[in-house]
Amino acid sequence: MGLLQLLLLTALVAVCNSYAIPLSFRLNEVNGDEINDNPYLNLGAKTRLIEGDMALPPGRNALADTAYRWKFPIPYILADSLDLNAKGAIFQAFEMYRLKSCVDFKPYNGEKTYIKFEKLDGCWSMVGDQQTGQRLSLGSGCDHKAVIEHELLHALGFYHEQSRTDRDDYVDIWLDQVIPGMEHNFNKYDDSYITDQNTPYDYESIMHYRPYSFNKNDSIPTITTKIKVFNNIIGQYLDFSALDVLRLNRMYNCSSPLTLLDQCAFEYINICGMIQGSSDDADWVHTLSTPGSQDHTLIGRCRDAGFFMHFDTGTGAVNEAAVLESRVLYPRRELQCLQFFYKMTGSTKDRLVIWVKMDDGTGTVRRLKKVHTFWADEDRDWKIAHVPLEVGTKFRYSFQGVRGDPAQSSGGIFVDDISLTETRCPAAVWQIRNFSTVLQNSDLNTVLQSPRFYSPEGYGFGVTLWPRSSYTDYTGGYTGLYFHLASGENDGILQWPAVNRQATLTVMDQDPDIRLRMSTARSLTTDRMTDSNGGLYWENPAITGTFDKDCQCFRGGSWGWSNFVKHFDLRRRNYMKNDDLIIFIDFEDLTPLIKTEVPVRSQE
Amino acid sequence: MGLLQLLLLTALVAVCNSYAIPLSFRLNEVNGDEINDNPYLNLGAKTRLIEGDMALPPGRNALADTAYRWKFPIPYILADSLDLNAKGAIFQAFEMYRLKSCVDFKPYNGEKTYIKFEKLDGCWSMVGDQQTGQRLSLGSGCDHKAVIEHELLHALGFYHEQSRTDRDDYVDIWLDQVIPGMEHNFNKYDDSYITDQNTPYDYESIMHYRPYSFNKNDSIPTITTKIKVFNNIIGQYLDFSALDVLRLNRMYNCSSPLTLLDQCAFEYINICGMIQGSSDDADWVHTLSTPGSQDHTLIGRCRDAGFFMHFDTGTGAVNEAAVLESRVLYPRRELQCLQFFYKMTGSTKDRLVIWVKMDDGTGTVRRLKKVHTFWADEDRDWKIAHVPLEVGTKFRYSFQGVRGDPAQSSGGIFVDDISLTETRCPAAVWQIRNFSTVLQNSDLNTVLQSPRFYSPEGYGFGVTLWPRSSYTDYTGGYTGLYFHLASGENDGILQWPAVNRQATLTVMDQDPDIRLRMSTARSLTTDRMTDSNGGLYWENPAITGTFDKDCQCFRGGSWGWSNFVKHFDLRRRNYMKNDDLIIFIDFEDLTPLIKTEVPVRSQE
Repeated sequence: MGLLQLLLLTALVAVCNSYAIPLSFRLNEVNGDEINDNPYLNLGAKTRLIEGDMALPPGRNALADTAYRWKFPIPYILADSLDLNAKGAIFQAFEMYRLKSCVDFKPYNGEKTYIKFEKLDGCWSMVGDQQTGQRLSLGSGCDHKAVIEHELLHALGFYHEQSRTDRDDYVDIWLDQVIPGMEHNFNKYDDSYITDQNTPYDYESIMHYRPYSFNKNDSIPTITTKIKVFNNIIGQYLDFSALDVLRLNRMYNCSSPLTLLDQCAFEYINICGMIQGSSDDADWVHTLSTPGSQDHTLIGRCRDAGFFMHFDTGTGAVNEAAVLESRVLYPRRELQCLQFFYKMTGSTKDRLVIWVKMDDGTGTVRRLKKVHTFWADEDRDWKIAHVPLEVGTKFRYSFQGVRGDPAQSSGGIFVDDISLTETRCPAAVWQIRNFSTVLQNSDLNTVLQSPRFYSPEGYGFGVTLWPRSSYTDYTGGYTGLYFHLASGENDGILQWPAVNRQATLTVMDQDPDIRLRMSTARSLTTDRMTDSNGGLYWENPAITGTFDKDCQCFRGGSWGWSNFVKHFDLRRRNYMKNDDLIIFIDFEDLTPLIKTEVPVRSQE
Repeated sequence: MGLLQLLLLTALVAVCNSYAIPLSFRLNEVNGDEINDNPYLNLGAKTRLIEGDMALPPGRNALADTAYRWKFPIPYILADSLDLNAKGAIFQAFEMYRLKSCVDFKPYNGEKTYIKFEKLDGCWSMVGDQQTGQRLSLGSGCDHKAVIEHELLHALGFYHEQSRTDRDDYVDIWLDQVIPGMEHNFNKYDDSYITDQNTPYDYESIMHYRPYSFNKNDSIPTITTKIKVFNNIIGQYLDFSALDVLRLNRMYNCSSPLTLLDQCAFEYINICGMIQGSSDDADWVHTLSTPGSQDHTLIGRCRDAGFFMHFDTGTGAVNEAAVLESRVLYPRRELQCLQFFYKMTGSTKDRLVIWVKMDDGTGTVRRLKKVHTFWADEDRDWKIAHVPLEVGTKFRYSFQGVRGDPAQSSGGIFVDDISLTETRCPAAVWQIRNFSTVLQNSDLNTVLQSPRFYSPEGYGFGVTLWPRSSYTDYTGGYTGLYFHLASGENDGILQWPAVNRQATLTVMDQDPDIRLRMSTARSLTTDRMTDSNGGLYWENPAITGTFDKDCQCFRGGSWGWSNFVKHFDLRRRNYMKNDDLIIFIDFEDLTPLIKTEVPVRSQE
């Protein structure tokens, strides 16, 4: 983990969302340079590089020549030179490929061709499968999911977006502003050499340079876009764009993603093959949005459309139930996450119960398991839910709505925008309401503290949100996000300091189609670093932390990013849908990844 | 061509849309049975058939066993036993596969495996590639694009939708209502034998039976749907459903369709990679829908969204122009059709000019060709346009808007919902405005006459629309559609009677995504049939027809379908978008298809 900058902030008490933080709060900055100056990282590289971060043997080009396309799964080796944080981020990038494409990876086991991830100078990759085993460098500051997605797209055969034959129709390249000797990074290629897979130029591609890439004058861009608004978008490092996903799937003839099992926004009357229970008392109703009762899929976008499933809890008798059941699904992993949005507007005794029904061993999907119960509360707005499943046989999942007290209910239960993936659910979710108001009412001194959450191992932790951080650039302001440990009920049994754990913070893009989400994520990995007093940063916060009366806990020192997400980005796409900002936090033990390198076997 | 029923209609003068037809109009009925009773067609089949229209060697199943999947292109033979109309319809079905998937076909040339289309008893196919050459039967009444799409889906490895393992969750099968001995047609298969490709049950699949399939009592269904509205939808023979397309593309790892070059609904600010001209006077503006100025993509569906491109003709000087140019496209065929919607609300001197810019021979896309000019008229609403292109090199297409008389314009030019396909444009397009009013004001005696159109060969023709035909069924009423020849300026040079020509009528589904359109089409092929007076039906209408003062032409006898399209279907999907019904008509010479059969060569 590269920790370069240290930022001290004397923060005042935040007045939003009832979370206050102590005076003299300290936020420590993880180096954000890898995001802003990625192309610079290659300046010291010893390998012959073209276009900043690609190492390309002459005449080889996976895009035109199918001989350089990979077979899946791609064997990989993680060299022990890699930062531990980079190793964790590599697995995050693998999971994004599996969620959005058919690209898969497996540990190296003597194959002729493979990718060896190493920490060399800068972030770079060869282009295409070289058929001989090849390196992919993740140098200092490259330990970031989106950077690894980018380098792997090179490995899979993709060039930078601004290398397209037709790029001059979309961007202006100011070669006189480029550092002398670096002009080759702005080469474009003939259309006999590369193909655009019949897709348009994509300003939003994760393969596009930023305005200031390789510039010699700090404030003068080397690339500007013909459509002005894209000056703020090119060079994004959130996630794959929709066209990145389309091109990847076209190049590799992917017919469906590997880990997406089911998805439903209930926009069509077939309700994605979901069925009404046959032995229950009532039905869920496929319902069109109305003012005051809007669906989640199209909220804020369209008044005349958008459907959700609704169960009325204001009629009938106590404990009457309606079951909405999925079609039969065939998992590949014994690990799933059911994510959905729900809203409960009736009695606080109403409940929404998640069940799974599994193969009973004879091929019949019948064996029931109650997984989780959601109770109504006073917050009568859309909430996100995550329910971890661990099913290894064919199964259905179902939503059972139960009428708690019809006499006290004038509402019901709403469900919308389901996705079921074969991925791990986030350990913690922080949903911040009315975020546009939060932004509006915040100044440089405003910070919000999340509640305390617990990791799967039992560590308490929290995040600090800095709505208007001190970081600004040509696109405007930024929101900062920081991680800290918090004292908790398990501290007596836990290992301290809590080292070799990776904290991953994600701001969720709430697009109803999970394949199109461009959620932004960053990770740091805890180590034995000391603070200015010689104490260990990741020591038990009950010893080193500051008491917070809101959580009735001690919060440790905060590490994170003042430039976590651009305000410009927050206002586009679906980051602030329903005016909610949704943050996922994970805190995972990476100790098993400390030793990963295996020797390459010689090919006979 | 099977002509079974003869329907005589003494029609009264229609009062809609200014087209009147003469008294005593005669509409002749093409047999519509293939649509309604398709499964019956196999009752007399000699081959062992399962599920009505499939011939399946025991134990073979392309769905589970990849050995039975085809390589593309699939070699085909058209036996001369086929009706000429069936041969034409086969090519229509091929074109739909190429537009929506990567499935391709080529004439047989000695390959080991192929499909031989023959006229045997009924419509049926083997399931999957049998690796030995196989038959596909198109018996009497099977000469219909959607029927052939259905049989080819069997050949490609798909079973009927109601054979799915989970079908009992979606439909009830009433075996006691099935003709004794035919119950096997309602078998379902274990999920170890077939796969659903991780897609939900699809009531709308072209592979689904109708409610009355194989029933023994005329009015009692054998299949009913759990979600009631789908009783009117199952067994549709419009076109592939969205899920049919998805499954086909999943099974064959199709990454993109073969003949779709470009498509844009302008919903996103990148305008699909289209660019503003650099040497023109003004720009097209990416514009959000407002009341009274709605885009075409989402019209009637969403007030808050939907964009179009707009060029203001009420400012600036006469002959000032703005050019909107496509990205560079790489055609595979020397045949394209540019389809789009436009609206001109300014001066009648305003014009919209379509250009192409082609490779000049050196790899530079520069050589200009003016293709077509659209002038504004008094009809200030969205119109559909088709512009045929014949480009064999890489090219761009462009829209040049020209200000005709800014002083007289308070509007401009709108463009939306473009698709560019490598297919033939329809010979004629009839756009009927306010179709819901037409339906409402029509009774059994109302018919509308199209204007006279000309075929590429020069034949005059028209269609007759019967908004509320005498045909009804459990779904409600139908609209009928009929074809006739009309006298015209080329009659002196044309061949008479006009035999071996195929008339194809299509009601367009105006979905902005061409891959999801389920346009309904039917075809008839002219022959030497005589009428009750002994005259030839397809003789020169100047001799045999009836004078119509509206077209100032003679219209010949009409042949068509009283059940062309269900009223129930018209009201869903996008058939009546913007309250327009859009009908395509083609009239093509099939003489080259009279002799098509080639002998099978023995495999050494």
